[in-house]
Amino acid sequence: MIQTRLIPRTAEAQEPPMLIKTLLAQSLRYEPQREIVYRNLFRMNYVDFNRRVRQLANVLADSGVAPGDTVAVLDWDSHRYLECFFGVTSVGAILHTVNVRLSPAQILFTMNHANDKVVLIHEDFLPILTAIKSQLTTVENYIILSDKVYTGSTTINRLSDIPTDFLGEYEALLTNAPSEYDFPDFDENTWATSFYTTGTTGNPKGVYFSHRQLFMHTMGLLTYIIGYEAMPFRGSSDVYMPITPMFHVHAWGFPFLATMMSAKQVYPGRYEPELLLKLLITEEVTLSHCVPTILNMLVSSPAAEKYRENLSRWKVLIGGSALTKGLAKAATELGITVMSGYGMSETAPVMAVGYLNEQEKALPTADQLELRTRAGRISPFIDMRLMDDDGNFVPHDGHSLGEIVARGPWLTQGYYEDPERGADLWKGGWLHTGDVASVTPDNWVIIADRTKDVIKTGGEWVSSLDMEDVLSQVDGVAESAVVGLPDDRWGERPHALIVQKPGYTLTTEGVKANLQAKVERGELHKWYVPDRILFVPEIPKTSVGKIDKKRIRSEMKDLILGVQSA
Amino acid sequence: MIQTRLIPRTAEAQEPPMLIKTLLAQSLRYEPQREIVYRNLFRMNYVDFNRRVRQLANVLADSGVAPGDTVAVLDWDSHRYLECFFGVTSVGAILHTVNVRLSPAQILFTMNHANDKVVLIHEDFLPILTAIKSQLTTVENYIILSDKVYTGSTTINRLSDIPTDFLGEYEALLTNAPSEYDFPDFDENTWATSFYTTGTTGNPKGVYFSHRQLFMHTMGLLTYIIGYEAMPFRGSSDVYMPITPMFHVHAWGFPFLATMMSAKQVYPGRYEPELLLKLLITEEVTLSHCVPTILNMLVSSPAAEKYRENLSRWKVLIGGSALTKGLAKAATELGITVMSGYGMSETAPVMAVGYLNEQEKALPTADQLELRTRAGRISPFIDMRLMDDDGNFVPHDGHSLGEIVARGPWLTQGYYEDPERGADLWKGGWLHTGDVASVTPDNWVIIADRTKDVIKTGGEWVSSLDMEDVLSQVDGVAESAVVGLPDDRWGERPHALIVQKPGYTLTTEGVKANLQAKVERGELHKWYVPDRILFVPEIPKTSVGKIDKKRIRSEMKDLILGVQSA
Repeated sequence: MIQTRLIPRTAEAQEPPMLIKTLLAQSLRYEPQREIVYRNLFRMNYVDFNRRVRQLANVLADSGVAPGDTVAVLDWDSHRYLECFFGVTSVGAILHTVNVRLSPAQILFTMNHANDKVVLIHEDFLPILTAIKSQLTTVENYIILSDKVYTGSTTINRLSDIPTDFLGEYEALLTNAPSEYDFPDFDENTWATSFYTTGTTGNPKGVYFSHRQLFMHTMGLLTYIIGYEAMPFRGSSDVYMPITPMFHVHAWGFPFLATMMSAKQVYPGRYEPELLLKLLITEEVTLSHCVPTILNMLVSSPAAEKYRENLSRWKVLIGGSALTKGLAKAATELGITVMSGYGMSETAPVMAVGYLNEQEKALPTADQLELRTRAGRISPFIDMRLMDDDGNFVPHDGHSLGEIVARGPWLTQGYYEDPERGADLWKGGWLHTGDVASVTPDNWVIIADRTKDVIKTGGEWVSSLDMEDVLSQVDGVAESAVVGLPDDRWGERPHALIVQKPGYTLTTEGVKANLQAKVERGELHKWYVPDRILFVPEIPKTSVGKIDKKRIRSEMKDLILGVQSA
Repeated sequence: MIQTRLIPRTAEAQEPPMLIKTLLAQSLRYEPQREIVYRNLFRMNYVDFNRRVRQLANVLADSGVAPGDTVAVLDWDSHRYLECFFGVTSVGAILHTVNVRLSPAQILFTMNHANDKVVLIHEDFLPILTAIKSQLTTVENYIILSDKVYTGSTTINRLSDIPTDFLGEYEALLTNAPSEYDFPDFDENTWATSFYTTGTTGNPKGVYFSHRQLFMHTMGLLTYIIGYEAMPFRGSSDVYMPITPMFHVHAWGFPFLATMMSAKQVYPGRYEPELLLKLLITEEVTLSHCVPTILNMLVSSPAAEKYRENLSRWKVLIGGSALTKGLAKAATELGITVMSGYGMSETAPVMAVGYLNEQEKALPTADQLELRTRAGRISPFIDMRLMDDDGNFVPHDGHSLGEIVARGPWLTQGYYEDPERGADLWKGGWLHTGDVASVTPDNWVIIADRTKDVIKTGGEWVSSLDMEDVLSQVDGVAESAVVGLPDDRWGERPHALIVQKPGYTLTTEGVKANLQAKVERGELHKWYVPDRILFVPEIPKTSVGKIDKKRIRSEMKDLILGVQSA
């Protein structure tokens, strides 16, 4: 940072910090009559919403929450969760969005690690709580969230299954709380949210974001999604429904944007395919985001064709894992607008979203599909680079590979109380994503591999995923896995495992000859051709079904011996 | 500000400041092929523009500009000015946008007061420079801006009329400068721009804005103009042409927004009605902002009807003075979309822009016109209040009057080296606008008067403008002026001057009876009725044609005596 001349300030002059309450204030200003809907159970407008957020602030104060304290939420996607996004943070407390998909032991770890003081928990998760409650070290108060109060099956003050040591039920507490609360000003670098990300080794890592970071993330989305119409999203006519959990990186930050724009919002609670489809149609949802699995489930549903007309107004941002061309095509044929995005827990999350420029919008649908399945174009305000092992930048030429590193206004500044892994994340002043990619001169990001799986051979980086894709095109190959193994001369060399289709008897020489022909036609770099090709009955997978390259590498020698002796 | 818990930061973690270069970077990212046009003389795309901004940075460095130095520009609206908006500020220097409409003596004052070190001046303003050059105390270098280099009437290196002590001509200097420049990071509170505002008394006052403030002003416009579609402006299809000088409050901040959105931009140079109209048509301009006088000039032009089809895509934001219903109607009938905005030099400037919500968009055109001529709805992120003389807030009920005071992320934090007037501006921690208004519960701002002209009687505020409007509806009244004069019982009481239409012989009693009838019908508060009504041959005016209420108040006694004895 160079020295410059700062603006002088008159003693009484004010310049407000960028806080989440600033976004909240917008929701009342222009279109306060628009609605926030929860399943088929509850609806309110933004006047109600703002009142409820203030009531929540009073409930939190009564339950002992002070600025700097942490409030944990365990809930499905709901209007209550949205109220916590704004209410918990705007009193100066920290919102811990607990990942309810973790094991009870991991949840216990995260809740103790985060120093959760007050816990808001949906009744569906009480069994988890029962299992860990005696070991929670910092919690002082519990509040239960129940849908029964909306169904009329019980009155809010007589919920039968509130554990006796709970402060009460959310709706009842809100109803009894004052509706005025003057949200204070404070430093915009105040800690606003926290959640945990799991890796293959070690304890979950806590990432965290400030008010300023979430404000700026909202401005980034606004610039891109609304300004450049990357999706596009219009507060004036769009209806938003998240289908990515709110505990997962703030539902990609869209609830903050949708609230600032006072857009109609629909929160689907626990994801049930039939209800999701019903809400999509009856509430006229136009914008969502989800992982490919959810999109696939909806697109494959027998009901989809019936609702073609309704689906044709639906725009879906896909992230979490790669959008395949097949799924993109199927969705597009139903009239759905799909686009990919790229980010991670550490990046709040948006770092790239697909955007078709004027020339690309004129392309035939098939050509557009290829673009829509790319990871995206670099987001506004994000400074993304590709870096090689020596810390040098790799050119954005569309083919050179490097690890994606980034700087930007909304990246976690470390892992909570985990200085070593935090220092690794920010080594050299750039956030290291662990993803290997190429970037085109016009800012398209094409993910190639994870850094730990990319094969570094003779100064070149070989994408194991690309090589698997090439092998999948060889006649008779059912599945393959490519890993790098140490090599005295080249550093590393690729090695492949292949599962054959029934009825085929492939040979190493035959497959290599096939690949060599591609090399001679200029379709493949010669250093991509694996040194060794082994035929196996199945590829080792992790518990979530991903190819277990770590295990393959570590067991490669045994595996080779095993296969050779079989 | 309450104490909260700030996010912890890993040693090497980075979080970039909000700088004007951040906006500039967006212009290259998605649609770099879009054009920036200067009159019928010059056009380039955003790739050229970004290169030229960097060449300018190198020229500035060569001319001795260091961070913290001030660079003055005297130019019409041009692509060069836009390059200075980004280039001067991004090297850490301060851009002084000199108001070329001030008298040479005032220009001299502002240039010395601002410590201008390097001056970029259009050849049209050389006569002004000649008059003041010997008295400029801080200027070290001059660069000339000439349109002749674009017309082919001369080559850029042989401009005949460059004064010999000038560094050179802008285009020639750019062409010879390196096209690489790495804009540094620095504190976002770095001083970016400065300009001077004149009042009825004292020297011009210097207002100033930081990088952060201009970034946030851009985000405010983005939220409102593009997000809420207050105008609406779409980077993807809109073409922007300012018709408010760039030296006047950054052309209302739109050049920053348009550049960030890589929208096509058209800069008209010196305002010439025929060229403006020609550019509007041939460049397919869709968005502008101007004062009512300019809109009136274009709407009244005989050519307007001929270009109805072209004008129907034109959206115009009106500010500077009130948009009358008559002008709004005439423009609307030509298919032009008009909307009012409100702000001042001290506020960067936007504090309110008209926005029709869902219900109002459904109103008949005539009802919409009334809304479109209001000062606007409070802008995103601006905290606007009405304050009485005791510093208490006045309710936003649509009729109670108070002085508009504000806080927000882009308000000048004082007047440069003028602590007394700066302290007055920010008295009590709110920026005092000197405007009296009412605000409706749904955030419409209706300007009533200037604070110095509002009449404070028995605890009530009477708008002199409203009372003049009532008088104008009395048969036989050609013009009127209402001022407050001291009153022992009520503090102040309204007094009126009236100019009669030819052929009428109005009496005080007759006019008062007319007003009393309105009071009895509930159309007028009784305390609005002037204590004294005087008939005069003409109303005293200032040199720019405004009613001179200061003079009327101070001379009221003499005037009364003079009239009575006549």
